Amino acid sequence: MSLTRLILVFTFLLHLHFALGSDPDPVRDFCILKSDSAAHVSCKNSSAATVEDFIFSGIQLPKEFDETGLSSIPVNVNVFPGLNTLGLSLVRADFEVGGVNVPHFHPRATEVAVVLEGKLYSGFIDTQNRIFAKVIEKGEVMVFPRGLVHFQMNVGDKPATILGSFNSENPGLQRIPNAVFGSGIKDELLERAFGLKGKEIAKLRKKFAPHE
Amino acid sequence: MSLTRLILVFTFLLHLHFALGSDPDPVRDFCILKSDSAAHVSCKNSSAATVEDFIFSGIQLPKEFDETGLSSIPVNVNVFPGLNTLGLSLVRADFEVGGVNVPHFHPRATEVAVVLEGKLYSGFIDTQNRIFAKVIEKGEVMVFPRGLVHFQMNVGDKPATILGSFNSENPGLQRIPNAVFGSGIKDELLERAFGLKGKEIAKLRKKFAPHE
Amino acid sequence: MSLTRLILVFTFLLHLHFALGSDPDPVRDFCILKSDSAAHVSCKNSSAATVEDFIFSGIQLPKEFDETGLSSIPVNVNVFPGLNTLGLSLVRADFEVGGVNVPHFHPRATEVAVVLEGKLYSGFIDTQNRIFAKVIEKGEVMVFPRGLVHFQMNVGDKPATILGSFNSENPGLQRIPNAVFGSGIKDELLERAFGLKGKEIAKLRKKFAPHE
Amino acid sequence: MSLTRLILVFTFLLHLHFALGSDPDPVRDFCILKSDSAAHVSCKNSSAATVEDFIFSGIQLPKEFDETGLSSIPVNVNVFPGLNTLGLSLVRADFEVGGVNVPHFHPRATEVAVVLEGKLYSGFIDTQNRIFAKVIEKGEVMVFPRGLVHFQMNVGDKPATILGSFNSENPGLQRIPNAVFGSGIKDELLERAFGLKGKEIAKLRKKFAPHE
Amino acid sequence: MSLTRLILVFTFLLHLHFALGSDPDPVRDFCILKSDSAAHVSCKNSSAATVEDFIFSGIQLPKEFDETGLSSIPVNVNVFPGLNTLGLSLVRADFEVGGVNVPHFHPRATEVAVVLEGKLYSGFIDTQNRIFAKVIEKGEVMVFPRGLVHFQMNVGDKPATILGSFNSENPGLQRIPNAVFGSGIKDELLERAFGLKGKEIAKLRKKFAPHE
Amino acid sequence: MSLTRLILVFTFLLHLHFALGSDPDPVRDFCILKSDSAAHVSCKNSSAATVEDFIFSGIQLPKEFDETGLSSIPVNVNVFPGLNTLGLSLVRADFEVGGVNVPHFHPRATEVAVVLEGKLYSGFIDTQNRIFAKVIEKGEVMVFPRGLVHFQMNVGDKPATILGSFNSENPGLQRIPNAVFGSGIKDELLERAFGLKGKEIAKLRKKFAPHE
Repeated sequence: MSLTRLILVFTFLLHLHFALGSDPDPVRDFCILKSDSAAHVSCKNSSAATVEDFIFSGIQLPKEFDETGLSSIPVNVNVFPGLNTLGLSLVRADFEVGGVNVPHFHPRATEVAVVLEGKLYSGFIDTQNRIFAKVIEKGEVMVFPRGLVHFQMNVGDKPATILGSFNSENPGLQRIPNAVFGSGIKDELLERAFGLKGKEIAKLRKKFAPHE
Repeated sequence: MSLTRLILVFTFLLHLHFALGSDPDPVRDFCILKSDSAAHVSCKNSSAATVEDFIFSGIQLPKEFDETGLSSIPVNVNVFPGLNTLGLSLVRADFEVGGVNVPHFHPRATEVAVVLEGKLYSGFIDTQNRIFAKVIEKGEVMVFPRGLVHFQMNVGDKPATILGSFNSENPGLQRIPNAVFGSGIKDELLERAFGLKGKEIAKLRKKFAPHE
Repeated sequence: MSLTRLILVFTFLLHLHFALGSDPDPVRDFCILKSDSAAHVSCKNSSAATVEDFIFSGIQLPKEFDETGLSSIPVNVNVFPGLNTLGLSLVRADFEVGGVNVPHFHPRATEVAVVLEGKLYSGFIDTQNRIFAKVIEKGEVMVFPRGLVHFQMNVGDKPATILGSFNSENPGLQRIPNAVFGSGIKDELLERAFGLKGKEIAKLRKKFAPHE
Repeated sequence: MSLTRLILVFTFLLHLHFALGSDPDPVRDFCILKSDSAAHVSCKNSSAATVEDFIFSGIQLPKEFDETGLSSIPVNVNVFPGLNTLGLSLVRADFEVGGVNVPHFHPRATEVAVVLEGKLYSGFIDTQNRIFAKVIEKGEVMVFPRGLVHFQMNVGDKPATILGSFNSENPGLQRIPNAVFGSGIKDELLERAFGLKGKEIAKLRKKFAPHE
Repeated sequence: MSLTRLILVFTFLLHLHFALGSDPDPVRDFCILKSDSAAHVSCKNSSAATVEDFIFSGIQLPKEFDETGLSSIPVNVNVFPGLNTLGLSLVRADFEVGGVNVPHFHPRATEVAVVLEGKLYSGFIDTQNRIFAKVIEKGEVMVFPRGLVHFQMNVGDKPATILGSFNSENPGLQRIPNAVFGSGIKDELLERAFGLKGKEIAKLRKKFAPHE
Repeated sequence: MSLTRLILVFTFLLHLHFALGSDPDPVRDFCILKSDSAAHVSCKNSSAATVEDFIFSGIQLPKEFDETGLSSIPVNVNVFPGLNTLGLSLVRADFEVGGVNVPHFHPRATEVAVVLEGKLYSGFIDTQNRIFAKVIEKGEVMVFPRGLVHFQMNVGDKPATILGSFNSENPGLQRIPNAVFGSGIKDELLERAFGLKGKEIAKLRKKFAPHE
């Protein structure tokens, strides 16, 4: 067997997990997603499962804040393989004073967020274009229905932290400014859609283009 | 309360269990959503169902074009009660020359669109912010995966028409410009999210505010 | 590694996709089904996806009519790999004058059909054995609830075309005459089931047997 | 009852359809379907549930055989209200010597059947029109995949009994001879579909017409 | 209409929500469960929805500890009506030093728990009867797969707090000691099942009987 | 390719089936789970399927009774590969006189049981800790809602047999005595949870420990 063919086999294996699943009821107790150094991806032999496979330790601390004053750490199946087929994931989001979680949505999940610290202006828009927004504080819980645009802003005078839960192991995320202005949609379309001039669109594209 | 009205109430109750909802497998052959002049909504007695309940006739012609040059007619459970519990709906969209279907998404469905007439620049953005867009023509089919932002623009020299199908009886629709700028999200948040000045945001808000 | 074992491996890979999925919510943006010359089937590396993967171009024209005057082109995951995990598919059906889509059903989906051209007698049977049938015309939409027997006949004086949508990427199809008389069910059973004589059954079997 | 309260009631009814279910996971331990003499149907107060609600006693004995030598007793949510929302149902089928369960299918479920007594020729047809059929005996189990046409015939020399299970609380049933020939589908369509003459179709229609 | 019948109607309405749902994809943006003083339960008119409907404020503080040193506050659809149809819920659990969350399971959900404070011995048992348990600390996340028995014990020297998420709006809870010994299962059965003597069972029954 | 790597590949293949699916609607007619002598597991080439793949013959007779007087034979996807993706499975349970099916539950399914022979005290506990139990006899059917603790005891004077159906191809099973006392949960936790002394717990652990 040539190396090329071997790589071919491994490449198939690598991508097989894309087809697994979706978020319905599991048919096994669990199925830990597996990758090794050779980049194969499949499910770990269940008899080799250990308690470590069901524990994730990467959200004790926030990461660095980005330019809108947000640090967000997703805890989904991509980083926590034990979630595979189990239909649930989390996110830890930290906000600087004035920090913003830009209008965004999750294509495959409802989110329930709990404020762990601070005070946030938090809301969502329904498909009738109505806004449901309010300042929520430590210990309060807010639900963002499946797929609807939502956002938060730290309106307190110290950092804020929320913990979000999703009913999908891989809810996905589309940040509106980046998806719309940073992905390369034709200028003419954006101009007509937003009623903006070419120059204004160009400025937005520049701001949200990847690596610029 | 007259006996007649009482019977009416009981009749509603009688058929309520037919109204099983959401988009999973149905548990009845069908369950036609029912509304009468008094605005009651429940499911029609199945023995009173007629073939007319399963036929919809409102998409022979486009409606008037809106300001982006689009006419779109949804055929979902809200207008076609026979779709209730059956997990499928349609939309007819017509485009003037240069007309645009602004970046939008459906929170609860994948869409498959067929070009019936014309030539459209059509695409979607995935959650890695990559664009998948191309000009498609009469007879071509394009799929927009569940919940992802997508858009079209008539780039031909005559009107264009597409027929979209959704795997939900009520997929929902969020048009980005309206949801983000026309719903009343706080200025400070939008300014920081888009890197725009207060004046620029104000202009966009004015443009997309309802009834203005 | 012997060629035999290699083939064995490839054969496994080939058939793995049978187990993937079903039609619930996806857990990825998309997962394009992949086959190459060696007949391996798996999912395409998502970073190699192109816009062409989401576009299908095979229904611009009808195929040849069969003996009941029908040409039908399914657009499901078997021919349009980009539909994989996305829970939706289509069919284009064309009818000669007098052409018939024989009584059939889809074991895994509801269908919503739009008349693109012509005039069709179209209907379905519910599980109470009631018929819901009517002549529908260009621009009209009819829904055939999940799994129920339905049919169409071109009753106009020119060819007719419909576009059907299904809420499954692979809805399946059982044509009643072929499934019942062309599959090899024992004569005695068919005789008793239909109250027909051996000779009559033999005639039907001959007509619907494959390759005759 | 004041008009205000009446409106209140109607308003409740108006919105009830938003929440109702089907055959996915339940959200309560149980929900016993309720009907009383006044023909109201709703769910029984859970605090009034008794063990009798979860027990069904109607399949100790077969019913009378019909003209194909079959007695079949469905145990679904329509007769056993405790199954509501729980996604499972049964059928008891008895066969005279030579008795036949005509080609039929269940639009909303897979079936697993166990032979309790006797010897049956039992099979199904897949969507490639292949037959999978064999004589099975007491204690053997056969699965009929979701929505596919299947059938049985008692080929032993004493009565036979099977117990079927379905993964839907209301799987539905379409018997092919009755659905196709007894429901009133236009003669011309049936003639072309089956390649039969008007007279032959008329005979079949007469045989399977309701109440004849 | 007599008061009795009126009450009857209201009682029906009261229990209708039992039939609602399950946890599949929603078909509306939201559907807020509604109860008023007269104890009617249905869904709130969506145009009357306010932001308060999507916010829950009852978990800022723990409740009193019970006899195993646990305080647990569920945030499910029964107390937070805005979760209805959205498929997600939470629980806040606080533990005294040495406090125990007894072996229990949720019949309708996977749980993902985050340690907010303290140090807990935490684990679950799979269907092969293997234990997966470990001491987890502040900031760590553990997943308990759908329906499996799990437990926690505060093994630190100060109170501990966890926040659990469930992928059901109403996951249900069965605490093993109470379900098995406090529900009234026949003594003979428990004696044989656990290999305990009548006296030992009697002691356990007394301990876990309701109101004792 | 070294033998080690080959084994690696086979090991991946072996465990791939863990990720397949769950119990939603199938997207193929069937998908027979495949294992060969080299322990590879995948899905059988559908063109190689035979009727034997859909028939299971292992429940004609009970197995040996265990120490609680029960013999139980599951008919799930692990022993009957043809059930794969089809969402249904069975169990045959036989009871000696006085035999007990200890309190247990299925994490992923509702069960409907039919008494084939004998007389059983049979019941379940709901999440309010209420018991629903009664003696049921030959021909009676009882439903045990998804995930709830249930049990049976043969209270007649001859052996009893039941046939259970599940709406999952792999419902899972947790027997309470074994899961709680035989899995290795820390003594201190069990002592506090059950209010038992160390010595009592030790006795129970010994009884239910594997291989003792």
